[in-house]
Amino acid sequence: MRPVTDLARLLISCPDRHGIVAAVSTTLAAAGANIVQSDQYSTDPEGGRFFLRMEIHLEELAARREALEVGLARLAESFDMTWRLTAADARKRVALFVSRQDHCLLDLLWRWRRGELPIHVACVISNHLDLEQEVRAFDVPYHHVPISPETKTQAEARELELLAGRVDLVVLARYMQVLSQDFLDRVGVPVINIHHSFLPAFAGGSPYGQAHERGVKLIGATAHYATADLDDGPIIEQDVSRVTHRHDTRELASIGRDVERVVLARAVRWHVDDCVLQDGNRTIVF
Amino acid sequence: MRPVTDLARLLISCPDRHGIVAAVSTTLAAAGANIVQSDQYSTDPEGGRFFLRMEIHLEELAARREALEVGLARLAESFDMTWRLTAADARKRVALFVSRQDHCLLDLLWRWRRGELPIHVACVISNHLDLEQEVRAFDVPYHHVPISPETKTQAEARELELLAGRVDLVVLARYMQVLSQDFLDRVGVPVINIHHSFLPAFAGGSPYGQAHERGVKLIGATAHYATADLDDGPIIEQDVSRVTHRHDTRELASIGRDVERVVLARAVRWHVDDCVLQDGNRTIVF
Amino acid sequence: MRPVTDLARLLISCPDRHGIVAAVSTTLAAAGANIVQSDQYSTDPEGGRFFLRMEIHLEELAARREALEVGLARLAESFDMTWRLTAADARKRVALFVSRQDHCLLDLLWRWRRGELPIHVACVISNHLDLEQEVRAFDVPYHHVPISPETKTQAEARELELLAGRVDLVVLARYMQVLSQDFLDRVGVPVINIHHSFLPAFAGGSPYGQAHERGVKLIGATAHYATADLDDGPIIEQDVSRVTHRHDTRELASIGRDVERVVLARAVRWHVDDCVLQDGNRTIVF
Amino acid sequence: MRPVTDLARLLISCPDRHGIVAAVSTTLAAAGANIVQSDQYSTDPEGGRFFLRMEIHLEELAARREALEVGLARLAESFDMTWRLTAADARKRVALFVSRQDHCLLDLLWRWRRGELPIHVACVISNHLDLEQEVRAFDVPYHHVPISPETKTQAEARELELLAGRVDLVVLARYMQVLSQDFLDRVGVPVINIHHSFLPAFAGGSPYGQAHERGVKLIGATAHYATADLDDGPIIEQDVSRVTHRHDTRELASIGRDVERVVLARAVRWHVDDCVLQDGNRTIVF
Repeated sequence: MRPVTDLARLLISCPDRHGIVAAVSTTLAAAGANIVQSDQYSTDPEGGRFFLRMEIHLEELAARREALEVGLARLAESFDMTWRLTAADARKRVALFVSRQDHCLLDLLWRWRRGELPIHVACVISNHLDLEQEVRAFDVPYHHVPISPETKTQAEARELELLAGRVDLVVLARYMQVLSQDFLDRVGVPVINIHHSFLPAFAGGSPYGQAHERGVKLIGATAHYATADLDDGPIIEQDVSRVTHRHDTRELASIGRDVERVVLARAVRWHVDDCVLQDGNRTIVF
Repeated sequence: MRPVTDLARLLISCPDRHGIVAAVSTTLAAAGANIVQSDQYSTDPEGGRFFLRMEIHLEELAARREALEVGLARLAESFDMTWRLTAADARKRVALFVSRQDHCLLDLLWRWRRGELPIHVACVISNHLDLEQEVRAFDVPYHHVPISPETKTQAEARELELLAGRVDLVVLARYMQVLSQDFLDRVGVPVINIHHSFLPAFAGGSPYGQAHERGVKLIGATAHYATADLDDGPIIEQDVSRVTHRHDTRELASIGRDVERVVLARAVRWHVDDCVLQDGNRTIVF
Repeated sequence: MRPVTDLARLLISCPDRHGIVAAVSTTLAAAGANIVQSDQYSTDPEGGRFFLRMEIHLEELAARREALEVGLARLAESFDMTWRLTAADARKRVALFVSRQDHCLLDLLWRWRRGELPIHVACVISNHLDLEQEVRAFDVPYHHVPISPETKTQAEARELELLAGRVDLVVLARYMQVLSQDFLDRVGVPVINIHHSFLPAFAGGSPYGQAHERGVKLIGATAHYATADLDDGPIIEQDVSRVTHRHDTRELASIGRDVERVVLARAVRWHVDDCVLQDGNRTIVF
Repeated sequence: MRPVTDLARLLISCPDRHGIVAAVSTTLAAAGANIVQSDQYSTDPEGGRFFLRMEIHLEELAARREALEVGLARLAESFDMTWRLTAADARKRVALFVSRQDHCLLDLLWRWRRGELPIHVACVISNHLDLEQEVRAFDVPYHHVPISPETKTQAEARELELLAGRVDLVVLARYMQVLSQDFLDRVGVPVINIHHSFLPAFAGGSPYGQAHERGVKLIGATAHYATADLDDGPIIEQDVSRVTHRHDTRELASIGRDVERVVLARAVRWHVDDCVLQDGNRTIVF
């Protein structure tokens, strides 16, 4: 990837009104920052909500960041902004959750090793032992946290302990356990899940079985932020692949795996590049 | 399109067992017919159901068809076959139902005029007058059958009267009225509908509104046989188009129109080419 | 489409350097204009070229436009900018050139009539009479300008006469004549062409024949600005469709028509919405 | 994958004429074989070439295969057939050639380990050492055969020695050396290559650089049989991915990798399933 020293990303959302871009860009120019890339979106220029993502270049970013933040904080107050500034070279620390299926997990690990995914893989957590050797070959810690209906509370407590203060993102790379509301409340970082269907079609279990039963001509996958409402969180990315009557459920699953891993990889990439903002239950992907 | 004289299509379904293809092809060879194209599918070689579509060439088909049918009938008895033989040059007579949106209707009429769609357009039936002039330019009769909750029974009776004995297929080209179970029972020919979503997602009304609300990243269209269970009939074809957070409901509908017309045109083409067989609520598209 | 009163689009390109967005947005804010949408791209933040497209809202645009333009002109001087301001409600006047194939032409005319394409269709010019009646049904003037190797110079002179001062864009909607360098020099407005292949594959004549010969598994279409180097101008949009060994050249052409008309419609839409900028032989499509 | 005992695939090509399918299916029925799946294609029913692929089930295939082959040989003589019978459970032995890029290689190894690719990976041959450890983790022999302009002849001789009698297929999984005509003549098995462009566009070196230069809006990959005419062999599969002006050559390559690995995996799968026949420089993929 490109050298990212002195690059930062500024994410802003606020009620839409006149002069936001002028005010932001003037603040940036005053701090010596150059706008390298800018994207914006308004749900409605009259009374809607405004979203902005800028990539900025500021020489000696580390040293001059505080001054910039003071300027932005002042601006934020007058425009009622929610904002966030992240250095492009600050890799997000990611925990990967997985059960037994390896395709999404390996795909993320490969991309990471190849330099396509600018993250730090903090650890893999699994309720099974199957993939331990595979993961250790990448020099990544593998935590086995078995889980059963009876031990769910303790298992999640153990997971939270493993994550505490160590990760910026959790990715469910075909983790076949439902996370409790309590876990989601306490984990304190975004959780991205890959669902093996084109949501909202075939929510719930066995989506490929459902797809075969219904006789659809395309199957898909959906990456979304996990929320208490299973399969109902904000969608980040989706894609589909063409199938025919000849494919049985097993073959649909096999074709689907190719879609799942690409969709999840895109969603993770966009998230860690700070390209995804949330607007209620919808996402804005810049 | 290619000259289709002396070409016929043979469609067969029966319980799967050994020797079906040998028996069929021997019967055809005995009758002097050459197999030009053949497709087959079995839901399960052990105890499943077998489906076969053959394109055959038989010189002087018209004169020799009866002899061939006698042979096929004999065969059908021993294999418990459902079968159908259609001459490729026997164009199916089609009635197009439409409300106010012109895109699917015009697309079908234009393909027909270009010679891409080997049908005979018997008539257009609409509950509105909007598209009358447009349709008449294609030299196609336009029947205006207004419909309201109070007049639905009479309107459908009028439609059945217009269709009786005159069509082999009804295509709902964005006809925004729900056909009654009684109509479907009595019409006596297949009915193909285009639904403006990727079913089973967003069944029912306002699918583009639902899609916008849910924040999906792809929108789609589904052509299916109409059944009493609205939006639940066997799916013939589906496709999707990529969208983003920037597209409002109106723009989703505009993008969707391009998908709808192509999906419907494919489904109609495959149906009139006798490529679609039904297996319960699923289709086999050869 | 949305009400576009008081909306304008500002297109800028200039050498990249610090502070461009701040300067532009400050100039706009000073003029009372609100930035509704903004896209930017730099070929290289160090020494590259910067491209910007903004949608702005300025109440009483007509009355206040001149003042804004004075500010922009001043700005342009200090940043060495090429710039253009267009009112969103100023529909571009378009001439459609066509030979005998109707699919691209009709598709554009339908979209225009349906309100999907914010243009004014000034006229259709054809070297054949085939589509005259069809075009007149849309209340659009149809000019028949036959052309042969011997009459090419006079024919193009006649075409230039018909266009002079009357159009902002020429669209070659499957016009099968090569425009001379002289015509392109003198026409004074952009010319968009649709080529029936995925350029640079199968440039020149009979692309579907070439595609069949080569046995490709996808066929495509390319909309590009016409230049003296035939099939070599800047590409605006491309798309493809899957094919198999079963499709002969005739069927490839039929499948290809669906791709051509959608690709051309997108390119025209983006051009008239002022979304396309040129960077040498490449396009930037915002 | 499904149990494949007693399943075989019959591939036939011959001049097209009446009665081929009847003769074949009667021969099969006489031998006690059941046709599970059948696909056929004729370049032209009048004087063209006929291609047939059948999946057949024959109990105690191993014991009864010889008798079946006698019958097929007799048939082949009267119809001037080229034919081949392969047991579905006879996994093809595959050598994978690779240079430094791991994505295609890992994808094939991983699919193989998952049971998605019914092959036996005989060995990996590379002109570099980079991927040795990775490959050994799959328990696959890794042969390092360095190659330079001066040592090319000896290096290819060494490769042929490693392959001799041990493989049924060579797959070039991003092997960046051009194989000599002599190598191709002597290797004696099919060679599948993945080219990182949508051929025939951007044949030769640096296709992503060429694609960026030309400003295309889609990039692709092509799997084809390697022939003496570099990048000109029969195409097995192709696919594309959408790109924009924002993607530089490096990013095009990254996006392209996802297309390459899927296209190559499909081509290899279809080849080892005996689904691909050659008709001059075109392929028939059943």
